[in-house]
Amino acid sequence: MASTSKLPAGGTRTERLASWAANLRYTDIPQDVVAKTKDFFLDTLGCTIAGRHHPAVIAMSRFAMQMGPSNGKSELIDGDLKFTTSPAFASLVNAASSHVVEQDDLHNSSIMHPATVIYPAALAVAQDVQASGEDFITACIVGYEVGCRVGEFLGKSHYERFHTTATGGVIGVAAAVAHLLKLDAEQTLSAIGTAGTQAAGLWQFLMDATHSKQVHTGKACFDGIFAAYSARDGLLGPRDILEGPRAMGIALVPGSTNPEAIDQNLGKDYEVTRSSFKWHASCRHTHPSVDALSSLMKKNGVAFEDIESVVARTYQAALNVLGLSGRGETVHQSKFSMGFVLAVAAKKGQAMITDFTEDDLKDSSLRQFQNRVTMELDPVIESKFPESWQGTVIVTTKSGQKFTETVEFAKGDPELPLTREEIERKTRALATYGGFTDTGKVDQLIRRAWNLENEKNLNGFIF
Amino acid sequence: MASTSKLPAGGTRTERLASWAANLRYTDIPQDVVAKTKDFFLDTLGCTIAGRHHPAVIAMSRFAMQMGPSNGKSELIDGDLKFTTSPAFASLVNAASSHVVEQDDLHNSSIMHPATVIYPAALAVAQDVQASGEDFITACIVGYEVGCRVGEFLGKSHYERFHTTATGGVIGVAAAVAHLLKLDAEQTLSAIGTAGTQAAGLWQFLMDATHSKQVHTGKACFDGIFAAYSARDGLLGPRDILEGPRAMGIALVPGSTNPEAIDQNLGKDYEVTRSSFKWHASCRHTHPSVDALSSLMKKNGVAFEDIESVVARTYQAALNVLGLSGRGETVHQSKFSMGFVLAVAAKKGQAMITDFTEDDLKDSSLRQFQNRVTMELDPVIESKFPESWQGTVIVTTKSGQKFTETVEFAKGDPELPLTREEIERKTRALATYGGFTDTGKVDQLIRRAWNLENEKNLNGFIF
Repeated sequence: MASTSKLPAGGTRTERLASWAANLRYTDIPQDVVAKTKDFFLDTLGCTIAGRHHPAVIAMSRFAMQMGPSNGKSELIDGDLKFTTSPAFASLVNAASSHVVEQDDLHNSSIMHPATVIYPAALAVAQDVQASGEDFITACIVGYEVGCRVGEFLGKSHYERFHTTATGGVIGVAAAVAHLLKLDAEQTLSAIGTAGTQAAGLWQFLMDATHSKQVHTGKACFDGIFAAYSARDGLLGPRDILEGPRAMGIALVPGSTNPEAIDQNLGKDYEVTRSSFKWHASCRHTHPSVDALSSLMKKNGVAFEDIESVVARTYQAALNVLGLSGRGETVHQSKFSMGFVLAVAAKKGQAMITDFTEDDLKDSSLRQFQNRVTMELDPVIESKFPESWQGTVIVTTKSGQKFTETVEFAKGDPELPLTREEIERKTRALATYGGFTDTGKVDQLIRRAWNLENEKNLNGFIF
Repeated sequence: MASTSKLPAGGTRTERLASWAANLRYTDIPQDVVAKTKDFFLDTLGCTIAGRHHPAVIAMSRFAMQMGPSNGKSELIDGDLKFTTSPAFASLVNAASSHVVEQDDLHNSSIMHPATVIYPAALAVAQDVQASGEDFITACIVGYEVGCRVGEFLGKSHYERFHTTATGGVIGVAAAVAHLLKLDAEQTLSAIGTAGTQAAGLWQFLMDATHSKQVHTGKACFDGIFAAYSARDGLLGPRDILEGPRAMGIALVPGSTNPEAIDQNLGKDYEVTRSSFKWHASCRHTHPSVDALSSLMKKNGVAFEDIESVVARTYQAALNVLGLSGRGETVHQSKFSMGFVLAVAAKKGQAMITDFTEDDLKDSSLRQFQNRVTMELDPVIESKFPESWQGTVIVTTKSGQKFTETVEFAKGDPELPLTREEIERKTRALATYGGFTDTGKVDQLIRRAWNLENEKNLNGFIF
């Protein structure tokens, strides 16, 4: 167990967060929180294998081969292969892979994808230090809590410029890894500080469909691991990296921060329970509109061919992100086009991972539908974001009828979570998409994930 | 030789910069530029050994041992030891070490320290790919040019929040390494883009004298090497990472950028010739005031004991940076206190590396002098910064006399450069400070540095 060090009372919010992170014990954690942590773990394993052939993953794996050790205790995915290496490189590559297919979770109020950074880092380090299932679960909960709270602190205006999954994520990783390394509160504070001064990740890659999204998740793991391991070895990080006069809040947030998010209700509620599964395989900002459109078509008996136009009413962050990718020239980019995603969902009745293909990019019926979709800012929806990610669609049919549908929650939201059966189904689909045919191994991983708290170690979890 | 690829005419400024970087040839470079590149190389080697026992260096070396390979072609400094490892880790540690003692160069108009990132990265990669002295020199000139131009683009307001040595430096490293790997212009552009989306480094560490300054230089090397090696292996970086709508300019610059700095006069003048040596061992922002005070005391026969008060009139960036470290509780922090630095210079007649010690921190005469120093913003000096780093001091003596002295250039500025003899003297002093007693080896390194263009490889340059 980590020591029960506390930082002095009356310190900064960041000190209180570090102290909480260092001192959380498995036995403190409610069972529903443990269960949700296992759900997202399995979900992330599926995402990791689904992305394994992406050129960014292969390039980053080549870097790991050239710069890292040729042996180690941590498992690294590399196309059809699996290697072992040091945890920094294993998680660099696995995190990149887990973020390729846009099926990893989304934490609404922080606007970040915690799973794609927290699990790969914690898994690789757990393998390195031979941590137990209980220790791993506890560390992941720490990572979610710290990462998402930092994301909430940074807020909406930060997200307009920065990929919060990376900038909040690196701090969550540092805290999770610090916990696995049993650092005390002072060392954990150093790890958080060193992570924060490395926080980076710009949206510019959306303009030309380049590979930075995977770089951001991979590097958040690498850099967070660097922060925690080096804190153990005496590297001092700035103490108030969130609210200090030259810290993240000042430098990386053009609007206002949310300081109370850093430490209010620590230990009373858990951020991991507030994260959402992604059911559709597209950018999360399209999901409320997909659900609203699907519901509208079903309720009113409207078919794909009947639709003349769609107006998707949404919040500003969706307009910002989705507006950057143009019409979607690549499969990845097409998942960031509201028009294309709604076209796919309307035509196929779903927008699962197998529903976005090279052939679909050339489908003129999808492209024509895409051109008839517009997005509009909805002030009411905007006022609720990011606490709530709502969507409204207005459909005009070719016969001149008009229908409107609003969804308050998207499928996969905390209020509408996936069942374990659905998570298993999604995991199998992701494995199939990733070209993994050993269904017996998938069955075994599912069993191990559901029994995670009793696992003696985390070896063998990378395919 | 790298291919002579060019990007399409009429592209962005960043494309023109990448194209220039990929296509520079040793034979294009004027001899005075080569000579200056060798001067700063030797200067940096001295800095690297001087910092080698710092706890940040040791902690980062531990990280390299745990995460990197136990063999490789690149030399890594580690306290009294030397190891070989992969270039990413070797430069991570060496760059940290070269920035400890605040004796590395300063490029005025970009407000960054290019040597501490460019040389360690280029040296480690040159050892990895067994590049020649000519190739190494060319790559370093590319790194200076790209890094400093990005720093100038980011400008003064960026520097208020970010350590430009890291944020501009990572891009300079990527370009230098891309050149050593003989990447074409497209790949170099990708390397620059991937470097830019990792750009990070906050001044918060100044508030509590923690270790991020070394993290920033080390990670700029690591991350820039990642960007270039992975670009070679197919990782695509955003094409317009400087001026794009979600790029560094928008996200990391609160004020205005200087876009023309990116590509004007490319190949006509060379940034490396515009960098300054550091003669004093303190923060570069104190140097104009140190020189002005020394000159004033000499001219007017004023002794340390005679001085009642000093007003140091300077530019805003100096006030910002120097104002953060308080009175200087550690040796490192004391070099960021204008009052303490002026006290040392006034009392000892110099402010060399051996003039800042633990004992000096407890010297009440220095502390009393320090308390009688104030800084003031000088609007004329401010208007010339950062193109020119001027300083004015006003001294009032205990007998009531008042003297004023202004320096237009500090010793080590391009207008007042160190001679080769002074560089050698400084290098020997730095080696002595670093506890290195093998003067024969120092002689040999000096000889090899002055003959660098004829060296077949760069092996053996780390002590």
